[in-house]
Amino acid sequence: MDEFEVGAPREPDTRHGRLLLAFTMSLDGFVAGPDVRAGQAMGQGGERLHDWLFTDTSECGVDADMAQEVVGLVGAVILGRRTFDVGLAHWGDTPYPVPSFVLTHQRREPLVMRSAAFTFVDDGILSALHQAHRAASGRDIVVMGARTAQQYLRAGLVDDLILQVAPVLLGSGSRLFDDIAPGPTELRRERVLGSPFVTHLKFSVTRDSSTG
Amino acid sequence: MDEFEVGAPREPDTRHGRLLLAFTMSLDGFVAGPDVRAGQAMGQGGERLHDWLFTDTSECGVDADMAQEVVGLVGAVILGRRTFDVGLAHWGDTPYPVPSFVLTHQRREPLVMRSAAFTFVDDGILSALHQAHRAASGRDIVVMGARTAQQYLRAGLVDDLILQVAPVLLGSGSRLFDDIAPGPTELRRERVLGSPFVTHLKFSVTRDSSTG
Repeated sequence: MDEFEVGAPREPDTRHGRLLLAFTMSLDGFVAGPDVRAGQAMGQGGERLHDWLFTDTSECGVDADMAQEVVGLVGAVILGRRTFDVGLAHWGDTPYPVPSFVLTHQRREPLVMRSAAFTFVDDGILSALHQAHRAASGRDIVVMGARTAQQYLRAGLVDDLILQVAPVLLGSGSRLFDDIAPGPTELRRERVLGSPFVTHLKFSVTRDSSTG
Repeated sequence: MDEFEVGAPREPDTRHGRLLLAFTMSLDGFVAGPDVRAGQAMGQGGERLHDWLFTDTSECGVDADMAQEVVGLVGAVILGRRTFDVGLAHWGDTPYPVPSFVLTHQRREPLVMRSAAFTFVDDGILSALHQAHRAASGRDIVVMGARTAQQYLRAGLVDDLILQVAPVLLGSGSRLFDDIAPGPTELRRERVLGSPFVTHLKFSVTRDSSTG
């Protein structure tokens, strides 16, 4: 069954500039605990989700590999204003060392950080995507923040879902997949890998050729 | 990494009479579409979840093996009244060929079917569990129906979660993990297996020895 475990793309690799959601999620679907705020960016109890990143996985190289995967793909980031507000102090920089676009309703000058800059986008998710594509030079774009992810899912613009499922039921918090679409969205399973600490899933969104 | 893929229990096998949730779930957490009713037991569009059971998996024996797994474990079933009402015509029998206990608020005589009987339990989930344990003679007990599953999750009585994750976002319907618990429930990953059609996950609920 090994051929189903390690997911190589089953098509010629024409991927570039893909829009990725990359989240660690509890088995019950939460990507943060309740009461997300400055100083508690993952919500109450939500830091449990990231235990796998801080566990000694010397016997489970897959976790270390997966933790680096998005870093290797990302050329730009799009994030919500709320994620920016609660994350900035934690990151002390852009969340990845690449140009980062913050969806907001207020005009604001770019904020230059050590690795890259935050650019504030006040004219919608398509504008942010367009600017991110130009900045990413063909590399992928990562969306951060559950609400922002939901906006891109609703708009049918997400290409890939990279999910780390943590073996815990949080019971409450921010759901990734909430209010996302009026109907079914077919996915293709690209990868399933697991360690005792987390299960690594990757899906791509299936589209017909007219929209893909 | 194969040792992480095929999940044997990592303890001496002292399992018997375990309470199992066994569901096929969309990646966004739904175990049925909206508008579940008689004649539409899986809700609108929810039959998509079970495609993997009806796909020619001759090249993916794992799916066929997993489809049979619960049949091999189950000694009794507990189901909600609603699941009974919408499922009976579809099954034409008990859902598995074992004694089946229906949670209800109305007294009713047992209903003898071809394989086994439905017994109606009007004095709560603990009574149903007790009766199911006696009927199962040491075999496992499967809970059917999302709301009934949630009652047993809230009560901390579930031992194992056997989930088939279908590669689709349904967008709406009945969530398995909704309103389940006030706080985190730690799980142990027992198994991760995948075919292109479905991802097979198994988790056990971690308890300290005083409650397990």
